[in-house]
Amino acid sequence: MKKIAILGSTGSIGTQTLDIVRENQDLEVTGISAGSNIALLESQIREFRPKLAVVWSEEHAKDLAVRVKDCDVEIASGMDGLLKLAAMPESEILVTAIVGMIGIRPTMEAIRAGKDIALANKETLVTAGHIIMPMAEEYGVRILPVDSEHSAIFQSLNGEDPSCIEKILLTASGGPFRGRKREELEQIQVEDALKHPNWSMGQKITIDSATLVNKGLEVMEAKWLFGVDLDRIQVVVHPQSIIHSMVQYVDGAVMAELGTPDMKLPIQYALYYPERRYLGGQRVDFAALGQITFEDPDIETFTGLKLAYRAAREGGLMPTVYNAANERAVSKFLARKIRFLDIPDMIGDCMNHIKVIQSPTIDEILETEQAVYDRIESRW
Amino acid sequence: MKKIAILGSTGSIGTQTLDIVRENQDLEVTGISAGSNIALLESQIREFRPKLAVVWSEEHAKDLAVRVKDCDVEIASGMDGLLKLAAMPESEILVTAIVGMIGIRPTMEAIRAGKDIALANKETLVTAGHIIMPMAEEYGVRILPVDSEHSAIFQSLNGEDPSCIEKILLTASGGPFRGRKREELEQIQVEDALKHPNWSMGQKITIDSATLVNKGLEVMEAKWLFGVDLDRIQVVVHPQSIIHSMVQYVDGAVMAELGTPDMKLPIQYALYYPERRYLGGQRVDFAALGQITFEDPDIETFTGLKLAYRAAREGGLMPTVYNAANERAVSKFLARKIRFLDIPDMIGDCMNHIKVIQSPTIDEILETEQAVYDRIESRW
Repeated sequence: MKKIAILGSTGSIGTQTLDIVRENQDLEVTGISAGSNIALLESQIREFRPKLAVVWSEEHAKDLAVRVKDCDVEIASGMDGLLKLAAMPESEILVTAIVGMIGIRPTMEAIRAGKDIALANKETLVTAGHIIMPMAEEYGVRILPVDSEHSAIFQSLNGEDPSCIEKILLTASGGPFRGRKREELEQIQVEDALKHPNWSMGQKITIDSATLVNKGLEVMEAKWLFGVDLDRIQVVVHPQSIIHSMVQYVDGAVMAELGTPDMKLPIQYALYYPERRYLGGQRVDFAALGQITFEDPDIETFTGLKLAYRAAREGGLMPTVYNAANERAVSKFLARKIRFLDIPDMIGDCMNHIKVIQSPTIDEILETEQAVYDRIESRW
Repeated sequence: MKKIAILGSTGSIGTQTLDIVRENQDLEVTGISAGSNIALLESQIREFRPKLAVVWSEEHAKDLAVRVKDCDVEIASGMDGLLKLAAMPESEILVTAIVGMIGIRPTMEAIRAGKDIALANKETLVTAGHIIMPMAEEYGVRILPVDSEHSAIFQSLNGEDPSCIEKILLTASGGPFRGRKREELEQIQVEDALKHPNWSMGQKITIDSATLVNKGLEVMEAKWLFGVDLDRIQVVVHPQSIIHSMVQYVDGAVMAELGTPDMKLPIQYALYYPERRYLGGQRVDFAALGQITFEDPDIETFTGLKLAYRAAREGGLMPTVYNAANERAVSKFLARKIRFLDIPDMIGDCMNHIKVIQSPTIDEILETEQAVYDRIESRW
């Protein structure tokens, strides 16, 4: 029996993780958490019978406690609740499916408690990779990537010596505006940006995919996850999203993982690594597919990707600035308060004006996030 | 220092193996062999200083001995010479780069002597896979595939449990006549058939690539090498030959090895497995490549592939019949004695008329090869 705790069980990755649990008799859910969706959390408690369930606000926690008073489950709230969930002695692996900086402290707590991390929270490595990776090594825990691209790289690295990596080829769909020039993006509406060609995802990540900021964040994550220099991480636009990413080795061989777009695969792979288990679903039909294509990313149009390389190269707090500025910019775009092209411009502005230090602590990272939020609020 | 003996050092794979030796200080050539090209063998002896050199005919061996009398090398000839080369105590690995049935006995001798086999001789597994694979297991030696497709599968399997294979996807360029129908192949000339779109290879294998017989033989080899049922080996036509082959797993993930067409990669991979070493040469430039395509093979036009599945399914001596009939048919085509479409027809005729037994011995395999040759000589 493999025991897992899920940080963020009501979101896209969380619910798909529970789909995997449904399909496998030897997975047990020890704990779950949600932001505010206590209706779904209640039904998850009734179905999966976790020992602990955490909701963010105390008020929601009280509501939930009343709803599930017939169940044998402990209810907790706030950061204390998340830390408790992360470190609960019953679990072996923590799925960090929560969105935002809020995921960092519980991830560290889980590492200290010796849990493997199935990592779906982008902010963890983007902002605190310099803290998390050495910590994981110190405590001997594995950081198992859950998103499609990093899982593909991880699968392509299986059993290979990382010193033999010549290059990581991170594939990108290019988003809905691939091929368009800057002037064509002036009038982009929220509805246009929410149409992702291949993946069905949340709104924030769909916008990030349209700006290529998502790919920029993935470049930063790849750097930490695989210990590879930035100049050896190349983004390849591949609109069909069949090749999920590749690794080029020193002998010229390129190993790739391909598949239909299905997040269940990387989730299951992380949960059972290094074992592969049967997973239903559509297989790639190459003849029916006919062709797949590749092109270079247009970083002069999609400047969000260019800024990501700059942020990663400058390091320290810069990726935090990049990520926080993007987060707020996307909110404002979704609320129709700024235009599509303002998103990278807002990121660039913050990167130019926030004081950056190297090797920041978690407190400094969180303070910088707040400083970015404040700057954006005061100016836009 | 890794010590290798090369069976067939003057052919395409043999000379490329020596290229790899030139580039790597820790490879030593203990023995080499050639059919009749003693001029090249002499220069290889002078450059690589093997302890043993073997030529097929006694006469050539005598000539060679005179030419290299100033070198500290033993000269041998015939099957005894090849068996000696295969089992020489100084070597750890035997590269079987020789073409034809003549490679089987030395391969078995090497296995008995505990040498790993870098396998480039197709006939070994096609005709005697049922003998070779259990033997390799018994003696604890590794059969390391040297051709591009099987090496890609082998690389895609690295570290994975073979029971997790759902399907092997063997890629095929489709050859120079891809897309043509049977009636368009009536008047094919030798010169047309020798124009392979991607790989520069010997004449026999280039014709086999045009008829898809080469892919048929690879299907048979894959069955033995990876222990996978025939109905789980699918040929995918991929004209650009960038994806060298793929493995689909039970979770739907498809692992693939991609690269530019360069036989040095699979040779070097086999010699150093599981280690990867630097290898110069062109890398895949995905953006410059632009697109890659896939289609189903047209087995009604290229009946050689259909016959291969039939031969593999019927098993026993049938793959020997298939291979021997093809070998003679290709010779006759190259000599302009038969037409292109006669090649599969000749194979089919022999398959219908040669008595087949299951689990044949090496002697029975060799007798059957002769019977096929005799039938073809007497009828065409």
